[in-house]
Amino acid sequence: MQISPLIDQLIETLQILPGVGSKTAQRMAFGLLKHNRQGARNLAASLHDAMEKVGQCSQCRTFSEQNVCGLCSDERREKKLLCIVESPLDVLAIEKTAGFRGQYFVLHGRLSPIDGIGPEQLGIPLLVTRVRSLAVTEVILATNPTVEGEITAHYIFEALADSGVLITRIAHGVPIGGELEYIDGGTIAHAFSGRKSVGE
Amino acid sequence: MQISPLIDQLIETLQILPGVGSKTAQRMAFGLLKHNRQGARNLAASLHDAMEKVGQCSQCRTFSEQNVCGLCSDERREKKLLCIVESPLDVLAIEKTAGFRGQYFVLHGRLSPIDGIGPEQLGIPLLVTRVRSLAVTEVILATNPTVEGEITAHYIFEALADSGVLITRIAHGVPIGGELEYIDGGTIAHAFSGRKSVGE
Repeated sequence: MQISPLIDQLIETLQILPGVGSKTAQRMAFGLLKHNRQGARNLAASLHDAMEKVGQCSQCRTFSEQNVCGLCSDERREKKLLCIVESPLDVLAIEKTAGFRGQYFVLHGRLSPIDGIGPEQLGIPLLVTRVRSLAVTEVILATNPTVEGEITAHYIFEALADSGVLITRIAHGVPIGGELEYIDGGTIAHAFSGRKSVGE
Repeated sequence: MQISPLIDQLIETLQILPGVGSKTAQRMAFGLLKHNRQGARNLAASLHDAMEKVGQCSQCRTFSEQNVCGLCSDERREKKLLCIVESPLDVLAIEKTAGFRGQYFVLHGRLSPIDGIGPEQLGIPLLVTRVRSLAVTEVILATNPTVEGEITAHYIFEALADSGVLITRIAHGVPIGGELEYIDGGTIAHAFSGRKSVGE
């Protein structure tokens, strides 16, 4: 239906956004046209700028428009602790808790030979160099507790085994506030096998 | 948290989209940066173009970048039938059925004095002029069956009462495929009061 080629195109391009189908895209397009043209212009500018200027931090590989990101250049952060995560979203999730004050290394994925993702793609050689050359004393493996995440963690453990740094893995078990009744079997089994003495 | 001002800004501006909160905006921003920068650039361009160039059709008031939209300028469409709807999304919904081949008039809202929306804002004077000057023989009131939609329909009926054209209202009742058990009371009451002889 050719009411407006520009609107048709907007509805189509909005569908590149994750979770946005044709109905939602229609609502978005007409909503912006009616109520928030200035907001939409700002969004267009932000999208354009971010796509053109944001690259990866040369140290931790998270997305940043600077060569060294704000976290890596923050002098107040602990240089000894290095936390390894799969994605920049994990960095945000951990930062929100404000409980970790070390540095990060972002893999941008997990090992998956079937998709052509090997150690090179995840920057593991850079990670190894970084751990050896910097004053890192502990590497925390915070990849996801999936099969591929575990394999990736194991691979990194092997790659760093002779570097002399302490290598730890974040704890997995029943989430705080979770109810056993609603937790999957794998997690419960993990929580049991990872149990600790209460006195510790 | 200042990891990247450009990404922070993108996450914030994405939240102007209806139904997008901060978590979804984060996922969108990082998803685009990682997987679809070209798509995001296209989206930025589409947004910019649509916001700058799309106005209202001078005849039916739907959104269009032309002075007269594709539907109004389509010679194959019935000029005698004029369907009045609240929003351009209603035009899309009706067009999808391909059962109506007349013309439209878009109110861009409904009468709501409390929000300062009167007949002027809905273009009702333009509608009255259009009905009188063109070869319209039937006006179909397709505003929504809400209190304000009904009031709007009634107001338009009054405004066109002495124009000599047939004024109809779309039927309301149990939707096709709907089950009585799950339909609200108001709709059922409407379906009963609007019942027709089966022989008709």
